[in-house]
This record gives sequence, C-alpha cells and structure tokens, in this order.
Amino acid sequence: MEFFETVVRRRSYRGPMQPDPVPRDDLRRIVEAGLLAPSGCNAQTTRFVIVDDPATVEAIKTIVNRPFLATVPAFIVCVMDPRSRPNTCSFAVEDCAAATENMLLAITALGYASVWLDGALRTPAIKKALTELLHLPEGFEARILLPVGKPAGEMPPPKERLPFEKRAFFNRFGNDDASPAP
Amino acid sequence: MEFFETVVRRRSYRGPMQPDPVPRDDLRRIVEAGLLAPSGCNAQTTRFVIVDDPATVEAIKTIVNRPFLATVPAFIVCVMDPRSRPNTCSFAVEDCAAATENMLLAITALGYASVWLDGALRTPAIKKALTELLHLPEGFEARILLPVGKPAGEMPPPKERLPFEKRAFFNRFGNDDASPAP
Repeated sequence: MEFFETVVRRRSYRGPMQPDPVPRDDLRRIVEAGLLAPSGCNAQTTRFVIVDDPATVEAIKTIVNRPFLATVPAFIVCVMDPRSRPNTCSFAVEDCAAATENMLLAITALGYASVWLDGALRTPAIKKALTELLHLPEGFEARILLPVGKPAGEMPPPKERLPFEKRAFFNRFGNDDASPAP
Repeated sequence: MEFFETVVRRRSYRGPMQPDPVPRDDLRRIVEAGLLAPSGCNAQTTRFVIVDDPATVEAIKTIVNRPFLATVPAFIVCVMDPRSRPNTCSFAVEDCAAATENMLLAITALGYASVWLDGALRTPAIKKALTELLHLPEGFEARILLPVGKPAGEMPPPKERLPFEKRAFFNRFGNDDASPAP
C-alpha cells in the first residue's frame, strides 16, 4: 500500500475480528517494521512478544479484561527496557512509541486492524500479570499492547481532529501565515 | 512510495543538504502525516512549528549548534503540551514520538532526508532559547527537531541492528521457537 494512503487508512479499531489465526509470516512482517524504527543512540530498547498461542491469547484477554478484545486472534506486546545506560539520556518511551507506530501502519498496509493499548498496562496488577505470563526478565516492562486480526466489522470513521491551522504554524507558534512562501 | 519500502529506506541522515528551499506544499504534507498519527485519548497533544524563514532557520542552527546542520534549509519542531489532564494518564511523549515517526516516513516517501534530534533539546539552555525564538506558550516544550531537505550526499547504510531472534519472541520472552505455527 502507498505510504500516505496507509497513514490515512489507519484506525483505532475496537470492533469484532475474524477468528482466523494470523499467519506467522504476516506477524513477522509487522514486527520487522517495528524493528526498523529508529531508536535513540541506536540502543534498540524495545523488544516484542508476539502472542499467537490460543491459551496465551486467552490469558492476555483475561488479564487485560476489555470486552472488545473477545475475538482477537493474536497480540503483539511491546516490551521496554527502561534501564538507563551510563552517560546517556533514556529514549526508551520514544523508541517504543516509534516502533509501535511503524507496526500500526504495517498492520494497516497488510489489511489487518489494531488499536494502541497503553493506559491499561499502567495498572500495576495488569503489568505484573503480563510480566509473569510472558516471562519478562527483571526490569523489562510490558508497555504497549496491539491486538492483531482481520476486522469483521466496519472500520470506524476517522477520529475528529483539530484542523491543520490549530496545530501547525509557520516560523513561530500561533502564526497564521500559512500562505506559500514568496 | 510503497509503505514497507518507505520503512526500509528511512535513514538518520546527518550529511550535507541541497540549498533549495523546501516547497510549503511538501512541508504541509509531511506535517499532515504527523497530524494523522494516533494520540492517547485523541488528546492531540503535539503541535508543530515549521521553520522555513531563512533568519529563523539560521537562528535554530546557532541555538542547537551541531555542525552537520549547516546546510539544512528547513526544520520541523515538534512541540509537546505536557500538562496533565484531570483524571487521565499523560501520553504526551508517546503522542509526540508517533507523530515524529509518521513525519520521518513521509520525509522519506517524498525524497527528503532528516534525523530525529531529541537529546540536544533536553539541554535547558537550548530548550529555553527555542521557546523564546518560536514564541511557545507557557508550559509547551520544544521536544523533537527534524531537519528537512534534499540530501546532497550519499545516504548512509542501514544502522547495524540486532537480528529478529534477539528482539522478538513468540509467546514468551526469550522463546526461540519462531517456526511456523502448526
């Protein structure tokens, strides 16, 4: 799919999904897009657990406990290594978010649907249960959860967004001169 | 450009750039890709200052003081509204990073080059100078800086990266069963 079309078609999908398993080749392609996202100082702080084993898929649904996940056939869990490195800033959250955005676009380009689930994983009980389920090493953190599947329902319309002129400005904040440069 | 090709071709480019101004239509298209990135609770916390006025471009180079920026004809500054909202988590860093990744891919798809500059803006003196230069309102923060221009030099080779098997696992962390599902 063409890049800009992919960006326009991406949606946050919380509808029903088709029950078919997601082929591992497609899951790999999605995660490979995540691996190719940039990371601060190329530290590659994000790890990925791809969940397609039915028992583990069901365990995630039980832990996260969101009814709209009922029909999801696979998940990708973005795992962050937040341990700071000597003499560097941490870019782990940014790294994880950039990889997630690449994967959401890859999911769209391949005809699947997903939604960025993040707030739920900040609940300590959910974080702890995912850490145990996925055997995460000490210090690693399940940060973002992406359901993956073929949508069985309608894709939602685009989210309502502020217009360009309210969020983007030329040369100084609040400037309303968006005319072509002379 | 096709989506997966765009992901593969993206580079962190710190080489010389062609002196031509970047057409505003292209700058708008890049930023529109940023506007279409998801944001936590659709809060749209990221703002964008597109800098193409030569005096302001030069002022940014003086403030950020990185020699590889010498020939850059335009910048996009990602501005974050980090003020927390009542009863919600903050996703402002994630929002900003997702928008940045969309823009880096858009820059690639349109034949431009860029690099995600982030650590430099964490220096208080640089942050303060950019806040003043760009007239940022109280509480807003210049967080990520993207130079934009046509590369005048060779694109660098891909960064060296850990292989898939070291960063991605099926069903539990560290699992080396990446064989096709039965």
